[in-house]
Order: sequence, then structure tokens, then C-alpha cells
Amino acid sequence: MTVELISVGTEILLGNIVNTNANYLSLECAKLGLPLYYQVVVGDNAVRLFDTINTALTRSDIVILTGGLGPTQDDLTKETTAKVLGRSLTMDEHSRQRILDYFNNLHYPDSHSGTPGYAGMTALSKVSENNWKQAMMIDGSIVLDNDNGTAPGYIVEDNRKSIILLPGPQNEMKPMFEAHVLPYLKKLTDRVFISRMVKLCGIGESRAETMILDLIEQQDNPTIAPYAKTGEVHFRITASAADEETAGSLMQPLLDKLKERFKDNIYSLDEEETLEAVVVKQLKAKGLTLTIAESCTGGMLSGRIVSVPGASQVFKAGFITYSNEAKRRYLGVREETLKEFGAVSSRTAEEMAEGACAATDSEVSAAITGIAGPGGGTAEKPVGLVYIACRINGATTVRELKVKGNRDKIRELSVINTLDLIRRCLVGIQR
Amino acid sequence: MTVELISVGTEILLGNIVNTNANYLSLECAKLGLPLYYQVVVGDNAVRLFDTINTALTRSDIVILTGGLGPTQDDLTKETTAKVLGRSLTMDEHSRQRILDYFNNLHYPDSHSGTPGYAGMTALSKVSENNWKQAMMIDGSIVLDNDNGTAPGYIVEDNRKSIILLPGPQNEMKPMFEAHVLPYLKKLTDRVFISRMVKLCGIGESRAETMILDLIEQQDNPTIAPYAKTGEVHFRITASAADEETAGSLMQPLLDKLKERFKDNIYSLDEEETLEAVVVKQLKAKGLTLTIAESCTGGMLSGRIVSVPGASQVFKAGFITYSNEAKRRYLGVREETLKEFGAVSSRTAEEMAEGACAATDSEVSAAITGIAGPGGGTAEKPVGLVYIACRINGATTVRELKVKGNRDKIRELSVINTLDLIRRCLVGIQR
Repeated sequence: MTVELISVGTEILLGNIVNTNANYLSLECAKLGLPLYYQVVVGDNAVRLFDTINTALTRSDIVILTGGLGPTQDDLTKETTAKVLGRSLTMDEHSRQRILDYFNNLHYPDSHSGTPGYAGMTALSKVSENNWKQAMMIDGSIVLDNDNGTAPGYIVEDNRKSIILLPGPQNEMKPMFEAHVLPYLKKLTDRVFISRMVKLCGIGESRAETMILDLIEQQDNPTIAPYAKTGEVHFRITASAADEETAGSLMQPLLDKLKERFKDNIYSLDEEETLEAVVVKQLKAKGLTLTIAESCTGGMLSGRIVSVPGASQVFKAGFITYSNEAKRRYLGVREETLKEFGAVSSRTAEEMAEGACAATDSEVSAAITGIAGPGGGTAEKPVGLVYIACRINGATTVRELKVKGNRDKIRELSVINTLDLIRRCLVGIQR
Repeated sequence: MTVELISVGTEILLGNIVNTNANYLSLECAKLGLPLYYQVVVGDNAVRLFDTINTALTRSDIVILTGGLGPTQDDLTKETTAKVLGRSLTMDEHSRQRILDYFNNLHYPDSHSGTPGYAGMTALSKVSENNWKQAMMIDGSIVLDNDNGTAPGYIVEDNRKSIILLPGPQNEMKPMFEAHVLPYLKKLTDRVFISRMVKLCGIGESRAETMILDLIEQQDNPTIAPYAKTGEVHFRITASAADEETAGSLMQPLLDKLKERFKDNIYSLDEEETLEAVVVKQLKAKGLTLTIAESCTGGMLSGRIVSVPGASQVFKAGFITYSNEAKRRYLGVREETLKEFGAVSSRTAEEMAEGACAATDSEVSAAITGIAGPGGGTAEKPVGLVYIACRINGATTVRELKVKGNRDKIRELSVINTLDLIRRCLVGIQR
């Protein structure tokens, strides 16, 4: 049973937005073990959309369309799908009532607007006239309620094929997919698919793949798929069987092998858990508090830590000491250290970490100082040279990084490596 | 002359990577005024790739393929294109020599690997056997040199159509597109296209569009296209004419109208210039220094400022004072203020900004304190309530934000609104 995705929207063809819907749905299909051979993006044009849906139905079993379900004349997905299938549209009283309720509650989400305040009223006055168009359903379809907007979704079964229509805004599409489409797709397949994400840090992609090349080459069920991410390596393991228990027992031996080979490089087996969440979890478990001192990363490391809900329990303070003066004043880095070794040095990183702990009475601290470029590099200290440090209960570990890439990449990799250093220090592992 | 994009790669179909190549190329085509009706993603499969190229050639004039030019057996784009066109492949001595030089310089980029050190050697030993495949060219094609990898690109002209093959990794594709494909496409069109990006902040998308609805409805040449971005609104203005000067004079009246209507909401007309770059530029021009105090955003605002090359000239220090204790200790926020008004209050934001200036002798400071959720909200102070402040030469401006969205969105919009507040305060504009 193969799947094809059709994203409808001129804004994607103009390069206005990145097609993250297709990425999300592809990943969900991969998790379900459903082969996906084509993604197509087409504009809000009746003829081209007709052809695209028609072609998809000749070569794929399940066609998922996103976008073009809005209230305007330009929104053609439902009308065109009905035409391809030779079905008519009729008023769906249930959807009509839901739309009415929606506006009565004045609960119109403006998923595009960043600035609050304007969204509600303009949207309401704009859509109201055309809005009943959204209550029209394709004859014989299953209507999917939209809890985050006015456009319902639809599943149409036709000639042993399934056509699934979802709204374009991701905050409407995702909850609808999870609530209605995922259970539907699971029922279509007679097998259960389970997957785990083995997340590594502190090892390069090529090296990680080489370490399990034999497993990748032998793979069948479970399968192994590498997922690239800056500074990290993820492997998705997917097993399928008639029931969940059997799939689980098929997966376990491979999972054990990966754990054995990658050891401490694995920071999580949970797809949703980030590296910073692991660090916060470790600190909470040990009852330790953290203070951060940053130079070239300018707050990005603290920002990652604070992005974890509940970080306030462990995060004491952050110092962004970009200048030498600030390094001296807030972290007590010694004048002689800066003079003799420079601001970007192992010694300065060490003193920054010491000073951060001392300033706030934290048990744990981390520090970053480096040359992110594009200027400021020398032959001796080139752009990309970064020192990171972690101090725990009086002992400081410093590491030197030599990062290739532009300013953004150098800063991002510095942050990831420091998170990984804190993680390793907290469990007493050193690379 | 219409364009179609074909992205070749199983990793996109598996949801492993987001199709940012298609986004980049779509945007470039939009800038050139070339209509793009289809984007297709297809895997490394000879039959499906053949069909996809074949179909594209029946309905589009220019077909741009990315990916599948690598050295492995799975890389089929060149071979399949040759088959569709009925052409053969021959050794290109120029490409052969370049590949040889490339490896002799041991300059193999590993665009996927985040951790430096492992990439070069593994890649070299892995690709060398198959590598000469990359020196084979499609008969009669124009070979495009790759300065960042081993896979050359190709332009094939066939039956009044152009087929363009580019490597998949973005750090190879983009420079090749800019150096070779862009001039080629410009020559294909007999018109010159120029475009400007009008970038607004402090106004919602719906409201901004309503303010220029008459201009959008009348648009012809120049065209106006809105580009959504969290917390900002961008309009791309594109004019075309026989020469650049005429295009420029066509564009100017519309640009003037937008300036007149949006006034201070416009922060830049330069596509590449970010809001934080504008703030750094303003500070430099005025010879002022900045210190930042952040609570719920945990360093993200400082991170944005430090992301601007040369920010060190104006950025003095940043304090991430997540706890009340840190707010008192480093910023001198008064105990009574925290007790009477709370950490999330207009008064606390004001004192944070005052304290930041005082601590570092900066002329300018900015402060953020708010409830980013998911926990911590009350009826009186709900999640999304954020106070931002900017102090310049002794005068402090505080603003209250009520942001809808999840933790990430609340934090991001707080940062953007604060950057905008600093910008406005620096030129003496208040909203």
C-alpha cells in the first residue's frame, strides 16, 4: 500500500514557505512503514490540480492532500477532488453547526499573524461571506472535525483507494492527522509498526555509520535509517509484526547491539527528548543547579537550557561576557590570564566556569569562549577555535573544539558540544 | 517559459530532511519572474525517476533536478536523464582532472557531519572506487564545475527545453546555482527582473495586507507578494522590463507608496538585513553600547544580537536572571518590587533595564520578563504575558505583550518585539 503526498499552495511554489507539511507527513508514513514514492507540490489551479490528483490515483493507493481547503475562491482542493472522483458536494449540517459555534466563540486562530491583537477581527470580517463553502462535503466522505480552525478534513474511499484531504496550516493539520488519520491508516495496514530513535552526540555521522555498517547492510525487519541533524546523529529503528509485542521483541536485539556499540554516545532513545532536556533532567535528579557563562555564543546555550519547561528549578543565572571587561567583572577572570593566554584560551574558559560557580553558588557551571568569525581569526587562533568548560563540585573539564563552517554553524556546534560535555560530566563519562 | 523542480532523494521521502533546496530554487525563480507550477520529489528509483523527468518535459520548459549525482550505485539522476533524452554518457577529461585535484588536496567536504575530524578520511576511502562515475558527462551538455564537492552539474538543451542537473547538498548546489545557472536563466529570458523586500515589524500580516489591499488587487508590473515570517511581515516587490533602469523606475512609485503607508513599521528594504542587524547598525552609528537582561527568553535576545558579525563593538554584556535572586543580585531589582508587583510586571522590567545600564555603564539596555508556560500562569497573569523594556540615556520605555502560542512561540515573539522596541526607541519612534 503506497502513499503519495500532494501539497496544494502557490505560496510553496513561490518559495514563500518551506514545505514542512510534507516533511511531517513523510516521517509519519515512515513510522507506519508505509512506502511513499512521490511528493508533489502544485498551485491553486483547477487544471493542474486535477491532473495531479488524477495521476496520483493511477500510481498510489493512498493520496494525502494538504492545503486549499480555505474559504476563498482560490481554494480548490475539495472541489477538484470531487470532480476527479465524479462526486458532488453537499451541505454537511454537522460542519455547518461547528463553524457557527466557532465564530460565536470568536475563536478564530490566525496562524500566520505574529503580532497579537489584529488577527481575530480582520479574519472574521474577511471570511464570513464565503465561509459556508467550508461546510460542503464530498458525497460519501468521512468528515474530520477541525478543532483549531474552520476547515474540516475528509477521507474519501473510492475504488479501493483512499483520498485524504487536510487543511494547510500546520497547527490545524497536525492535530487532525493525529486524531483521525493516524488511526485510519493504522487500520488499513494489517501490521503493527513500532519505532525508536537512537540519539547520539559526540560522534560524527560517517563514523557512526561505519560502526554499524554490518547491521545496516543486513537490515530487514527491523530497519535502520540514519537521520542527519547538526552536531548529532539519529538512527530510527522500525520493526513490524502482527502485534506490538512481537514487533517489540524483534526490535530489542538490534537496540541492544546499538547500545553496546555506541555506549555513552547515546543520550536518549526517546524521539521527543532533546539533549538540553536530558541535561535538565540529570541536574534535577541530582539536585544540582547550573550557571552558564558565554562569550561567542552570546546566550544561545542558556537559551537552549531555558527552552526546557521547568528549567527554572535548576538554572540559576547566565552571564554573557562578550568583552574582556565583563569577563573580569562578573566572572573574576584574571587580568593576567587574559593578557598571557588571551580571551579565547583553555585557561580563560576554565576561569569563566570557576567564576560562574562562585558568583552564584552553583554546583555546576558551563563556559564557552571562541572565535565565531567571520573576522577575528589569526594563524595561531583561527576562526572556529572554541574552548568549552564544565565545572562540577569544584572540578573543571575543558575541551578544545576546532569547528569548520560559518559563524552560525560554529556557534551552534559549540552549544551542542557544551551540552554534551555537561551531560558526560554529570554521569562521570569523559570522551 | 515555465520551470519545474524535481528533487531526487529517498531521504526527503522518508522525512529525514526537509526539502529546503526546493524552497531556495522556488524563491530564486520567483525573483527571476519565472513561473513555477510543479515541485516533485521522487526517490532514487530508475523507473519512477524516468517517468517523472519525462512528464516534466511534456509540461515545463525548464526542468531543474537536484540530488542523485553522487558516486554510488543509488545515484541515478544523470544516467536516467541521459536515457530520457536518448543520449549517451562519455568521460569528461576536465571533470576527471578536477576530481583528481580535489582528492589530492584532501579537500573532501562532508556536508552532513557535524563533528569535525572524522569526515575527510572516511569519505575518501568510501568514494574513491566509484568516483570516476562523477566524471561522466551527458553528451552535448554544458558541464558546471563544483567548487565544493566532486559532483559536477550539467545543463542539457534538448528540443527547445533546458534540463539542469545540480548536486543535492545545499553547500554545493547554491554556489553552483549562483555562479552558473542564474546567469544562464537570465539569458533565457529577454527581460530583466529586479526585486526588493519591504520588511515590516510591529504590525500583523492581516492588517498590513488590508492597508495595501488596493495595491495588491491592482498589481501587474511590479508585483507584490507577501512572505510570512514569525512576528514580521515581508512584501517582495518585483518589477520587470527590457533593462534594469526601466525596471527600477517602474518599481519606485510602488516602493514610495509602501513607505508612505507603512512608515516606521518598515525596518529594512534589504533582503539580507535582519532586524538585529539593523539594531546593531543603529547602535554603531550613534556610538552607543547595549546591555541585555533576560528572564523567560533565557539568552535568546542576546544570542540574536551576538549573531551579527561585529556585534562586539556595541554589545557590553548580557544577564540571564531567571530567578528572583539573580534579578536582585545582578540587576538591583528591589525586593519590594518583586514582592508587591511580582517578577513578571511592568515595574520589574523597568528596574531590570535600569539595573542593566547601571551594572555595565551602558547607554542602552533592554529587558524581558514574562510567563512562557506551559506552567506558571494564573488568571491574573496568564501564560503569554510578557513585559519588555528599553532604556536609553536614562529614559525607560516599557511595553506589555500578550502573546498566544506555545513556549517557543512566546519566547520568539518576545525577542522580536524587543528588538523592534530597541529599534524604535533608537530613532525616537513610539508605537
